Amino acid sequence: MFNDFQITEGRPVYIQLKEYLKRMITNGHLIEHQKLPSTRELSSLLSISRNTVLTAYADLEQEGLIYAVKGKGNFVSHVETFKSPSIQLNWSEKVNEKTFLAEELDLMKHRVRWNKEMISFTSIAPDEKLFDVENFKRAFLNRLSIEGDIVLNYGYAKGYKPLIDYLLHYMEIKGVDTRNKDILITNGFTEGMDIILSSFNKKSGRVLCENPTNDSALKLFRLNGFEIDGIDMEDDGINVQKLKSCLANKEYDFAYFIPSYHNPTGIVTSSQKRKEIMDLFSDYQVPIIENGFNEELRYSGSHLASLASFAGQSNNVIYISSFSKILFPGLRIGWILADKELIYYLESMKRARTIHTSTLDQAVLYQYLNDGYFEKYLKKAKSVYKKKYELTVQACKKYIPYKRMTGDGGLHLFIELVNHIDSRELLKKCTERGVVFLPGNVFHTDNSGNHTLRLGFSRLSEKEIIQGIQIIGDTIKNHYGG
Amino acid sequence: MFNDFQITEGRPVYIQLKEYLKRMITNGHLIEHQKLPSTRELSSLLSISRNTVLTAYADLEQEGLIYAVKGKGNFVSHVETFKSPSIQLNWSEKVNEKTFLAEELDLMKHRVRWNKEMISFTSIAPDEKLFDVENFKRAFLNRLSIEGDIVLNYGYAKGYKPLIDYLLHYMEIKGVDTRNKDILITNGFTEGMDIILSSFNKKSGRVLCENPTNDSALKLFRLNGFEIDGIDMEDDGINVQKLKSCLANKEYDFAYFIPSYHNPTGIVTSSQKRKEIMDLFSDYQVPIIENGFNEELRYSGSHLASLASFAGQSNNVIYISSFSKILFPGLRIGWILADKELIYYLESMKRARTIHTSTLDQAVLYQYLNDGYFEKYLKKAKSVYKKKYELTVQACKKYIPYKRMTGDGGLHLFIELVNHIDSRELLKKCTERGVVFLPGNVFHTDNSGNHTLRLGFSRLSEKEIIQGIQIIGDTIKNHYGG
Repeated sequence: MFNDFQITEGRPVYIQLKEYLKRMITNGHLIEHQKLPSTRELSSLLSISRNTVLTAYADLEQEGLIYAVKGKGNFVSHVETFKSPSIQLNWSEKVNEKTFLAEELDLMKHRVRWNKEMISFTSIAPDEKLFDVENFKRAFLNRLSIEGDIVLNYGYAKGYKPLIDYLLHYMEIKGVDTRNKDILITNGFTEGMDIILSSFNKKSGRVLCENPTNDSALKLFRLNGFEIDGIDMEDDGINVQKLKSCLANKEYDFAYFIPSYHNPTGIVTSSQKRKEIMDLFSDYQVPIIENGFNEELRYSGSHLASLASFAGQSNNVIYISSFSKILFPGLRIGWILADKELIYYLESMKRARTIHTSTLDQAVLYQYLNDGYFEKYLKKAKSVYKKKYELTVQACKKYIPYKRMTGDGGLHLFIELVNHIDSRELLKKCTERGVVFLPGNVFHTDNSGNHTLRLGFSRLSEKEIIQGIQIIGDTIKNHYGG
Repeated sequence: MFNDFQITEGRPVYIQLKEYLKRMITNGHLIEHQKLPSTRELSSLLSISRNTVLTAYADLEQEGLIYAVKGKGNFVSHVETFKSPSIQLNWSEKVNEKTFLAEELDLMKHRVRWNKEMISFTSIAPDEKLFDVENFKRAFLNRLSIEGDIVLNYGYAKGYKPLIDYLLHYMEIKGVDTRNKDILITNGFTEGMDIILSSFNKKSGRVLCENPTNDSALKLFRLNGFEIDGIDMEDDGINVQKLKSCLANKEYDFAYFIPSYHNPTGIVTSSQKRKEIMDLFSDYQVPIIENGFNEELRYSGSHLASLASFAGQSNNVIYISSFSKILFPGLRIGWILADKELIYYLESMKRARTIHTSTLDQAVLYQYLNDGYFEKYLKKAKSVYKKKYELTVQACKKYIPYKRMTGDGGLHLFIELVNHIDSRELLKKCTERGVVFLPGNVFHTDNSGNHTLRLGFSRLSEKEIIQGIQIIGDTIKNHYGG
């Protein structure tokens, strides 16, 4: 007994001893009225200080796990170790269709497995090597010294007030008319989207969006029971003629657009098309959900206003965004900017579902933004990503036989292969050679896109980018001819 | 022009200037080809350094908002300021019944308004004055120096591995058999509960719980469309006879219990009753959701095993908990311990809804727990809260004419008033005298509890506790007789 007690570094030894003994008591390995070794004995047996044993015993006594008898030592208290008759429920019978669907649509679970030695173009998360950890620490310490106690206690469902104010200002600077608008802070873009979708009345039960579109939105449309009509993308944005004919022929509860660095195609919707879209939607009075995805990662070109900005005083655009893809995705902070009345309702849904988003994360992000670290970081990130972007474009031009390649910036390119090469088949072959990417079909609304793929380059080195694309090109050559 | 430019402290001036100009450009106050003041002029006009203006101009140029003409100066670029025809959607027509219900059940929006000068017994959040901000900072810096880049990037839906392992160990120490169990980290108890409820198959569509029970669970039952059967509480826990007869007579999808420091009654379910409950549920094969609420805040008495512990190898208990009510609610971290297969499904729902819980929060909490700060803090918190608890009990005995008072620890007491005094009516009168509390009806499953109230004392000073309870007692005397 006691000889399996092992000390882990970095955790107070008295706690480890206490937990070790507590476990033996709650498991029934030490039984009621059993005498524990004296503090002297145990300290010598385990080669730890007697004080450590004393503290552990005192804590155990305080928790009612042992009792002391003066002059006699410490004994184990009565602890219930009864276990109820063993039953095994079949949990897969207890979960509903929506949950099965969530599992089925869970790309992380079902995509090709890869390991760290491989070159992976699957991610469009920022490169953590770029992270500005030092200034993040500074922002943290700064905020905590200002109001550490408040930051660590409950906050409000709508969000942390200084961050809300900052973001309202941030949107105003971009030309958005924020009068009669409000902001709800969410656990990233995903929660924002899910709250909106689960709050919407289904009149037609139908949503209009770009085809392809980002997989997490697609998943949420499906999980929330919406039918999806996807409209294909031209090089300057959605096909407006088709959009018009959809709106003219069917009812829609809302439309969903990603005008800036569309995911997955990387296409930036032109100013002209943005205007046409906004005019159309004013006519049809259909609400728009705009995903502000990576608007900040524009490497060149003139300023482009968001749909929320074109909307002016209209209240038909719900703008969702986050800095996750640029700054710190680990923080899970996004926001919804929308009509005040709508935010009022969404706030109650947010409160019911998660009470509020981490005040700590919001407060530190606020401080980081306010102190100007974001601006500095963005410049650095842009220059690094721009270089990787250009390199990826060049390498694709050189090695990959594509029918179409799109991507005007951001952290990924989208490719349509020649000769209807199936990208899932290609992926299998590339995986064997140590390269993975995302086949484009997962982004499509209509089971198409079988010969497309998305290449995320943000987390790869320049060497890996070239090598990886070379391997993809090589694999195509070997299996499908040159 | 430019004379409304005002500098806010704590934010780099070049960013403020850039944003000021950007706003004027996107708003159309500065128009295409308009010449900007020279850097020299503007620096002198605004009394800021010329370098500041140079940096702001360079940034604006980089963003495509201005252009430089050599030898002539800086000019405003073409920026689209078109606004689509103004339309106003009626958002209240677009949100669904569930959202209206969430708004209706949103206690934060509809409860009595109070201000900071008043004495509020409404909260059962921890007292932020107790917060151990210094050690929290230490844990943060410690973790960030170990793996700052990882902590700030995307994590996994299931949670941060070191925290999951810590919590599995934590539950084992409490006597829980964790074989074939797993953990999902959630945004606090609330998200955990909501994910479970929205994942369950509704066979009977009915849930069994204690009456009263905590309002956030009640709200989620209702929002997820469950019928609720509440069973009243005896001083040692739920009325087991009634529980038995319910199970014998109706089908239930699951039961929900708060055996430790039941919210709102503060009752601790006895070991004997826990065994009886577990035996019953083994017979009926109905799953149990156990809320581990404040198990840690036991001020006295012997060790009590959780239902999850009594379950042994059975897989019928879903245990949800969080340290929010003790440690840092601002962090929003909770966990679900349950059968491995169930967690596998819930993980996909979690990923679909919020991707994952803040890695930063999880990592810092892990470090704080692992370094032993939690143990130390808990001792301090217990001694402070115990004193407040005893004081509240004494004051209630002295001043409030109650029929029943319950609360064996934790951060609140529950009172049933004599003579069927309506607690909502009493609340109105007390509010006028500067004291607020939560009327107990909001916790009841069946519109009863009109003469009950919950007194949360955690965030009040000893003086406020006595004064507040005196005022409640006084008000009762004045309006309902002594």
